[in-house]
Amino acid sequence: MSAARPPLALGFDADDTLWHNETLFAAAHEKFFALLAAHHDAATVERTLFATEMRNLPLYGYGAKGFTLSAVETAIELTGGRISAEELKSILELGRAILAHPVELLDGVPAVLAELAAAGHPLLLITKGDLLHQERKIAASGLAAHFIGIEVVSEKDDATYARLLRRHGLSPERFLMVGNSLKSDIAPLLRLGACAAHIPYPLTWAHEHLDSLPLAEGRFFTLKNLRDLPALIASLFR
Amino acid sequence: MSAARPPLALGFDADDTLWHNETLFAAAHEKFFALLAAHHDAATVERTLFATEMRNLPLYGYGAKGFTLSAVETAIELTGGRISAEELKSILELGRAILAHPVELLDGVPAVLAELAAAGHPLLLITKGDLLHQERKIAASGLAAHFIGIEVVSEKDDATYARLLRRHGLSPERFLMVGNSLKSDIAPLLRLGACAAHIPYPLTWAHEHLDSLPLAEGRFFTLKNLRDLPALIASLFR
Repeated sequence: MSAARPPLALGFDADDTLWHNETLFAAAHEKFFALLAAHHDAATVERTLFATEMRNLPLYGYGAKGFTLSAVETAIELTGGRISAEELKSILELGRAILAHPVELLDGVPAVLAELAAAGHPLLLITKGDLLHQERKIAASGLAAHFIGIEVVSEKDDATYARLLRRHGLSPERFLMVGNSLKSDIAPLLRLGACAAHIPYPLTWAHEHLDSLPLAEGRFFTLKNLRDLPALIASLFR
Repeated sequence: MSAARPPLALGFDADDTLWHNETLFAAAHEKFFALLAAHHDAATVERTLFATEMRNLPLYGYGAKGFTLSAVETAIELTGGRISAEELKSILELGRAILAHPVELLDGVPAVLAELAAAGHPLLLITKGDLLHQERKIAASGLAAHFIGIEVVSEKDDATYARLLRRHGLSPERFLMVGNSLKSDIAPLLRLGACAAHIPYPLTWAHEHLDSLPLAEGRFFTLKNLRDLPALIASLFR
């Protein structure tokens, strides 16, 4: 009887799953392209910025500070050093604007989390990026009380999820992860034997693109909106 | 009988307690001063850099990425925008050199941690700064296996320590924190009723200076070297 089993534990990504994030980076990218438009077309700037970010990722990790440092480096490189100090200051400002931006929750988030927590599901928040920025967003979101655990990690791979499930005494067979990134929120969980619900966000950072998913019949779901999650979970219990 | 009590749990700071850190920042500062020497004396550069770092701290937090961003901003400001792109690139390099530097353990660290862990003391690593950089240093240190928990936090204040002690089921009365910063490693623990052992490092970042400590008779100790810690702990059991 499914009713005798402990309630499914649920993991939630944060950026672009609970609140808007990639829109802020996209706006910063647009301003960065405009700043360098006299030197290069937007496609060249975007390609070079992404290559710089990927080269720096092992040292900088994810988040707005690493983006800002890579953008400064890219601007110097793409202008042959002719970028002005005023323009470099405005790049620093782009990064700070992301860090200082208020949290904007996605549609239905507080109601759905409250409903699921009230139904007895243990909820985990699992997010990657700048530690302080993520903590500040979690505090500002007003959502922290719904979660039994809040984990800010430097990478979302199989080893990270396995470690977090162990730490919280959760079994992959009774865990469902919810997120917008196939690469970071979905594929690792499917490989571990857990369930995963993908809720696409209108924008996806190139780094998070993925061309294929592990086979996981009956464990992988796609939702349009977080509001559809309670019905999905109910259907899993049938 | 003290022998019937559970072994004292021990918390360890990492930067400048287990491995060298401030020496790397000091070397980066020296190079930064030299870079701006044509514009300002070292004292002015240092004062301005520190003011910039403090202004940015609420958004950037601790660590080498925030230092680099604040150094770029300071250099632009102090040169009235006349700093060259080549020089700005070398500032980015200063930050990357800190992030890429191999971990250099302080004297006696592996032996002392091994001895204390073998004696049954639960050991916690509690460090603040860039999440990814701290994780990379912990992995490179080869020390991770000695610890029952490794916590990278965005701030080391009373609330953080209280939360970590709760998370690990530890009572302040049976906890001793070891570190080089009176502000971050010692004072919060003394306020919580725990013990704290201060091991000064030859260099201290201005932000970590503290002029007074909470009264904590019999709970505050100063050691010259981590090698003196086992003897201190043994004396606490007498």
